[in-house]
Amino acid sequence: MLDLEKLYSTTARETRKSAIRELLKLADKPEVISFAGGWPSPDLFPVDTISDLMVKVLKERGRKVLHYSKAEGEARLKEELIHLMAKDGVSAEAENILVLTGSQQGLDMLPKAFVNRGDVVFVETPTYVGAIQAFDNYGTHMVPIETDGSGMNPVALEKAIGEWKQRGQGDRLKIVYLIPDFQNPSGITMTEKRRRGVLDVAARHDLLVVDDAPYRDLRFEGKPVPSLYALDQNQSVISLYTFSKTLVPGLRVAWAVGTRQLIDKLTTLKQSVDLCSSALSQHVVAEYLATGCMERYLPMFNADYRHKRDIMLEAMDEFMPGLQGLEWTRPEGGLFIWVTLPENMDAEKLFHAAVRENVAFVLGSAFHPTGGLKNCFRLNFSFAAPERIREGISRLGRALTKFAQESA
Amino acid sequence: MLDLEKLYSTTARETRKSAIRELLKLADKPEVISFAGGWPSPDLFPVDTISDLMVKVLKERGRKVLHYSKAEGEARLKEELIHLMAKDGVSAEAENILVLTGSQQGLDMLPKAFVNRGDVVFVETPTYVGAIQAFDNYGTHMVPIETDGSGMNPVALEKAIGEWKQRGQGDRLKIVYLIPDFQNPSGITMTEKRRRGVLDVAARHDLLVVDDAPYRDLRFEGKPVPSLYALDQNQSVISLYTFSKTLVPGLRVAWAVGTRQLIDKLTTLKQSVDLCSSALSQHVVAEYLATGCMERYLPMFNADYRHKRDIMLEAMDEFMPGLQGLEWTRPEGGLFIWVTLPENMDAEKLFHAAVRENVAFVLGSAFHPTGGLKNCFRLNFSFAAPERIREGISRLGRALTKFAQESA
Repeated sequence: MLDLEKLYSTTARETRKSAIRELLKLADKPEVISFAGGWPSPDLFPVDTISDLMVKVLKERGRKVLHYSKAEGEARLKEELIHLMAKDGVSAEAENILVLTGSQQGLDMLPKAFVNRGDVVFVETPTYVGAIQAFDNYGTHMVPIETDGSGMNPVALEKAIGEWKQRGQGDRLKIVYLIPDFQNPSGITMTEKRRRGVLDVAARHDLLVVDDAPYRDLRFEGKPVPSLYALDQNQSVISLYTFSKTLVPGLRVAWAVGTRQLIDKLTTLKQSVDLCSSALSQHVVAEYLATGCMERYLPMFNADYRHKRDIMLEAMDEFMPGLQGLEWTRPEGGLFIWVTLPENMDAEKLFHAAVRENVAFVLGSAFHPTGGLKNCFRLNFSFAAPERIREGISRLGRALTKFAQESA
Repeated sequence: MLDLEKLYSTTARETRKSAIRELLKLADKPEVISFAGGWPSPDLFPVDTISDLMVKVLKERGRKVLHYSKAEGEARLKEELIHLMAKDGVSAEAENILVLTGSQQGLDMLPKAFVNRGDVVFVETPTYVGAIQAFDNYGTHMVPIETDGSGMNPVALEKAIGEWKQRGQGDRLKIVYLIPDFQNPSGITMTEKRRRGVLDVAARHDLLVVDDAPYRDLRFEGKPVPSLYALDQNQSVISLYTFSKTLVPGLRVAWAVGTRQLIDKLTTLKQSVDLCSSALSQHVVAEYLATGCMERYLPMFNADYRHKRDIMLEAMDEFMPGLQGLEWTRPEGGLFIWVTLPENMDAEKLFHAAVRENVAFVLGSAFHPTGGLKNCFRLNFSFAAPERIREGISRLGRALTKFAQESA
């Protein structure tokens, strides 16, 4: 029998099943209230509208949209994306856009395009687990940069770059990866000052800035901060957007915006990654945008998520015990709240205590390239129903209270 | 301004825009009859059926199928795939199947899982251009093995393996990549004897065998040869199947079948490649299979393609000049005919002469990892309408006749 282990690439050898996914299987019971998944609420999905648009598109252009599309994406969708981004101060032409089969595809293609094994990508602390996995698969050396409630600290970034350059490894430095809006997992939004600061450091040191923006349009309150793409004056930024959070994940439509030169290179790579994204999905999304559905439905998404965030934060204020060092973020949008436990407290142990109380979350260590942040965890507020959120947080408060007493 | 060239990975540096795509832009005019694309005929697409199934699936399970799916694929589709493959003598369980977003995704994931830069993959001569691109992006050393009208020659494969081992590079050898049924581009089907021979060589030398089978169900005549997967007794084979040729490309549904261990590894990799394939597409395909549509429509596909193949072969017999060494394949299925010109004749020069006569094809050199096969080209017979096929071949015959006279 073939011994696969002998044949695997370094990538396959080093890829491990996600410890988080394995851990979360413990919580996969109907009685558990899960704040773990990074999921939108299916109750909000405009199913009938999508069904109607499917029928319309198939009737009008069935033979075209069921055929192969082009690697770069459908011109009709790009037109709509140009309008959509223009409302957010982002000026782009069709040649600046590459349609992606979900923005995770962008996270896979960027290290493919920029990372040789051992090359360096600077990330926020914490950062998105899916980006860690994608970068890991190309042997990326991820360097977490100090990040606070205002976002990544440009001074810390510059210091880290300086250290690598001093060691003569400046040509290893490739990317600064950021989720500037309602970050996954922290919920934090980077201030304009910090954005300008990081862009300035990246420009001076010739680094590509990846602006991963899946939650940008999920703002419930406060004023939008200009996007990295809009602020950039050095053609340093590539932005990743998706319809997974503002419409539905199941159409698998996302896109990248960047310089023509970079989009052209990524388009060539996409040909061998999956040939093309579904033309049918692309035309349905284009119709959704063209007929004003986004303006109609997105405010409902945001109203629902705002309501759920408020319920979660209120319940946390009510049920979480008063522990020295226990704190959490209060995001102005997105899907997540980030909890920091007292420094000596292990979130993995709390996880097991929480599952015994039938509530679940994701460990902070999942969001750190080398498993730090062991005293942190992420809560998602968009997926569970409001009454389940309150009940879940009361269970979590109970688990934490007991756990703190046992640890004391 | 950011200098991307300094930042690119080896992969991005080495990736070139496909010369073939650039060349084919010359032929992108309405007056040109193109036999270039490897496309199914959109006239055959069961658009209304797909539309009805979309509506049904969205009505019954809209919130589920528009949400994230699992990386391994939807259980409901896998059930249907198990039935479908059983009819072809392939015995598989759900854990042997990974759903893919088009089989090109499998061609991207296999080198990711098995190839370190410089590792060796043995391929047929000629082989599929999309596989060449995918393997190239991981720095694969592709070694073309002698292939004739019966498929890859196992003696030649064993000889090549021996040479690498003798040079002490046996641990570089990873994969034998085959398209055994109605090969792209040659149209050739590998005999059972050759299949057993290659499986035997691969088993003795511990190589993975990739059985790329997009055209397997497009048989117009003759008896099916048992699949590599069915013949394998060493758990050496992974097969890639797709609905792009037997249903429509636009749903982007394909799948891999292999050992549990390998499917498990690929599933972990898929999480970071695109998270999951569209649940909506998967459920539509599952319904299509469950309601017997495949049995109803596939014979119509095959009848149409058989008719077109016959027209093309008849026209070739009629219009191609009598040149010493000019020959072409007579496939029993699939989408392609492979033409070999007299040895000294350059297909690229003929291409330009053909475009002047308003007919196009793909150069043979596209199907060779280092650009060999310069006196060959591929004709597709599935896409063009029957009357266009006859007219196109008459133009091609004219171009070739003139070209041969000028070259003489």
